[in-house]
Amino acid sequence: MKSVFPYDSVELSPNGREVVILDQSQLPTQEKFLHLTTAEQVFYAITRLKVRGAPAIGIAAAFGLAMCVNRFKTRSLTALENEFLRVKRYLYISRPTAVNLMWSLDRMERCFYATKQGLDAAEEKHAIEVMRNALTAEARAIKAEDVKMCEAISEQGFSLLRPGCGILTHCNAGHLAVSKYGTALGPIYLAQQQGYSPRVYCDETRPLLQGARLTAYELTKAGIDVTLICDNMAASLMAQHKIDFVFVGCDRVAANGDVANKIGTSGVAVLAKHFKVPLYVFAPTSTIDLDCVSGSEIIIEERPAFEVTDMYFSKRMAPKGVRVYNPAFDITPASLITGIVTEKGIIKPREIKNLKKQK
Amino acid sequence: MKSVFPYDSVELSPNGREVVILDQSQLPTQEKFLHLTTAEQVFYAITRLKVRGAPAIGIAAAFGLAMCVNRFKTRSLTALENEFLRVKRYLYISRPTAVNLMWSLDRMERCFYATKQGLDAAEEKHAIEVMRNALTAEARAIKAEDVKMCEAISEQGFSLLRPGCGILTHCNAGHLAVSKYGTALGPIYLAQQQGYSPRVYCDETRPLLQGARLTAYELTKAGIDVTLICDNMAASLMAQHKIDFVFVGCDRVAANGDVANKIGTSGVAVLAKHFKVPLYVFAPTSTIDLDCVSGSEIIIEERPAFEVTDMYFSKRMAPKGVRVYNPAFDITPASLITGIVTEKGIIKPREIKNLKKQK
Repeated sequence: MKSVFPYDSVELSPNGREVVILDQSQLPTQEKFLHLTTAEQVFYAITRLKVRGAPAIGIAAAFGLAMCVNRFKTRSLTALENEFLRVKRYLYISRPTAVNLMWSLDRMERCFYATKQGLDAAEEKHAIEVMRNALTAEARAIKAEDVKMCEAISEQGFSLLRPGCGILTHCNAGHLAVSKYGTALGPIYLAQQQGYSPRVYCDETRPLLQGARLTAYELTKAGIDVTLICDNMAASLMAQHKIDFVFVGCDRVAANGDVANKIGTSGVAVLAKHFKVPLYVFAPTSTIDLDCVSGSEIIIEERPAFEVTDMYFSKRMAPKGVRVYNPAFDITPASLITGIVTEKGIIKPREIKNLKKQK
Repeated sequence: MKSVFPYDSVELSPNGREVVILDQSQLPTQEKFLHLTTAEQVFYAITRLKVRGAPAIGIAAAFGLAMCVNRFKTRSLTALENEFLRVKRYLYISRPTAVNLMWSLDRMERCFYATKQGLDAAEEKHAIEVMRNALTAEARAIKAEDVKMCEAISEQGFSLLRPGCGILTHCNAGHLAVSKYGTALGPIYLAQQQGYSPRVYCDETRPLLQGARLTAYELTKAGIDVTLICDNMAASLMAQHKIDFVFVGCDRVAANGDVANKIGTSGVAVLAKHFKVPLYVFAPTSTIDLDCVSGSEIIIEERPAFEVTDMYFSKRMAPKGVRVYNPAFDITPASLITGIVTEKGIIKPREIKNLKKQK
């Protein structure tokens, strides 16, 4: 599968001392890269959605952890361990809903202690070097595996498509949200390369407009036929039989097959069921959380009112003092999901619980 | 029923020579009144949504027609008739979906010819005076009847409510959309006066944000408990059982009970059905179009792309050149509507066809 874009949304500099991200909050008008060199900058980049998308957040956090360890000046392995744990705990709470963040940081911690076991404590200077290299390699491995996952999940999703079909997508589960290609958008890039000429309809995805700013941006850039709509226009398109599939990404899959994804996904799923349009959730196995029994256990992040009342707006468009409800995600119940597309295959939501726990 | 607001959204000046409207495109940040003195200004005010809401458009068009007749300098009744018909035809096409506009202008035409029949053609100067007075009175009557309709439809809707219930509304069918009180919002004002403390959830209603800018504005001003949400958050609220009713206005009701209303209404209706929340459409009998067999016959206005890509936005939030689908309305099929609330009673959508034709 050819890469569609000349750069990645999240990268670790060759010397391991900078996390380089494309600032997604500035797209589509500016393509600006940020060079992050502190835990605070990584935390801020995640909370302010400069880096976003469940897999990309996981990679950014792992890179952030490696970067902090590489930059921390110490001759003591214990001091390094304390700093590692401090940064890990700090980044762990930067966003509560996507499970990849926790998954990725936990994996880094397992790497830390596995590496520590093999070290000779007497040679502390060397031990620190070994630890830095191990954590850097582990973070890079998380990303490399994500690239492979993208290729595999794209192939899986592509198997559902036929030439000329119409696909509705919500939010951004593309190139920008992951390491490469995308999850829900991956099959679309593949379909385009195979001459299928997919027609994509893209929900703008209020309040932060990831659809308008990011999905429309990356699909337009790749020369794909994309039409931007407001979120409330999807029913109208489905009633006109213009949508053959709904493809969405996800932030967390519970053991019962319930899915947390960007706010609005559950509404699209209700529409899809009503209009008999199959809805597929693209969920790398890193987003599956078997410890979470059902969607009702997932913490839904609520974000500030200004995102609804005046973010991106030249003039305020809601009256002063109005109360706002601004959940960042919602839960789509398993009953509304046709299939869950993982890098290993397409399964029914009720089959999630049979999967082995991912480490 | 007490008036909630100190001014009306559409008014004819006492001398009948100015149409005075509150410029709704500037709300909520500016309360600016426009004094319209030409047909072109009225046309522009309607197309640019400075006056909006199906009943308010009907009233504005009737006032516009009376204003033009009052201002037209002539001593010939034939010349006045030609001018009347020119302005009528011109305003008739200002917006295609709401039927009140056509209904109101047709009613003015019937008034014109009924008045003409009783005139003495020999006394042309006097005849012109009589005609001007008749048309001005007819336009004022359309508004006066709308005020009465508002009171009656508010009472009808109020009969559905109980203290403390949660109501979701879409777009703006309140004070600003009509002469006074509102249609879908009328029962909420009445409930507030009766101490019911209604909780209102208000869809922001992209792309032109009538919910955020207008509904949140007028409800906040009236001291009503209102929470603003993005359109894609309604499913999340319904899943949490926070919505007891959906109340929406409408632009046209077809004979089979299908309803055209602001884009997004049909999606809300699908959600309401899924979550078993009753949905009521507030339709003054002037919005019922028995000549229209079903919703598929209603012309859906498509509006310019910039409303989606950068209207109200300080920075453009969609990539250049992206295709946009921007229908202003959608059709909610009768099967998704619990009841249609008219000023004369609440009926089932299938009972619409039994109504007598409105003149």
